[in-house]
Amino acid sequence: MKKTISMIGACMALAMAIPAQAQFAKAEDAIKYRKASFTVMAAHFGRLGAMANGRIPFDAKLASENADIVAEMSKLPWAAFGEGTDKGETRAKPEIWQESAKYKEAADNMQAAVMKLNTAAKAGNIDALKAAFGPAAASCKTCHDSFRQK
Amino acid sequence: MKKTISMIGACMALAMAIPAQAQFAKAEDAIKYRKASFTVMAAHFGRLGAMANGRIPFDAKLASENADIVAEMSKLPWAAFGEGTDKGETRAKPEIWQESAKYKEAADNMQAAVMKLNTAAKAGNIDALKAAFGPAAASCKTCHDSFRQK
Repeated sequence: MKKTISMIGACMALAMAIPAQAQFAKAEDAIKYRKASFTVMAAHFGRLGAMANGRIPFDAKLASENADIVAEMSKLPWAAFGEGTDKGETRAKPEIWQESAKYKEAADNMQAAVMKLNTAAKAGNIDALKAAFGPAAASCKTCHDSFRQK
Repeated sequence: MKKTISMIGACMALAMAIPAQAQFAKAEDAIKYRKASFTVMAAHFGRLGAMANGRIPFDAKLASENADIVAEMSKLPWAAFGEGTDKGETRAKPEIWQESAKYKEAADNMQAAVMKLNTAAKAGNIDALKAAFGPAAASCKTCHDSFRQK
């Protein structure tokens, strides 16, 4: 059983490694890229949060635009967690590679929450945005708590 | 005449400053964001270049996907060049703010070239991609030469 799980882990690590190998010349390029994609995502996510929490006025057009960018950005970082990208200027925990199925699940959950947030942001009212923002923020936090160093 | 030009410059600087002020709590956040958006754009632009230059095989689907991301990312950095973001961890030259009309023109040219690249990437053949990649790359270089420190 233990062997099967570790084999699944190894296969997933390989599957994650292939696109990264193909897409990034060096591990540091992959690390820089994934951090950059999270940075852009976080900036736009933060604006949705500011609206959801009443720090800035709700603006349906801005909400929709920001949610689109968040949704697009949420797809990008994962290909950059390939083999050899666990060392360097990164806060990525070894658990990303050691528990890759769990990591993939957390990443998938975040993307699903963000897609719902995008739908909600297009409803044109603050209540829909508020309702979807919390679960999306929670999906970020879950992953950070388990897989990102403080 | 000189006064008019400097007033136009001041107005443009103000126009560029407003969204940045509204969107970024601190100048360093704006700087981090704009660098991140360029990093993500460059990674995907580089893949189109690799196809255009024959370093990787042409793949119509990948070309289209990468060009979409480049096109989306090309819209983002500009709001993050607001007032007070000329100092800090940045290679941005003072000319960005001193010659803001020229900078805006260079930024607009890049976005136009990238939109053409996106259309070309969707033609489904390597020749269209090759033809559009050069001008897009040149639009990056023009801006870097004039507005980015070495």
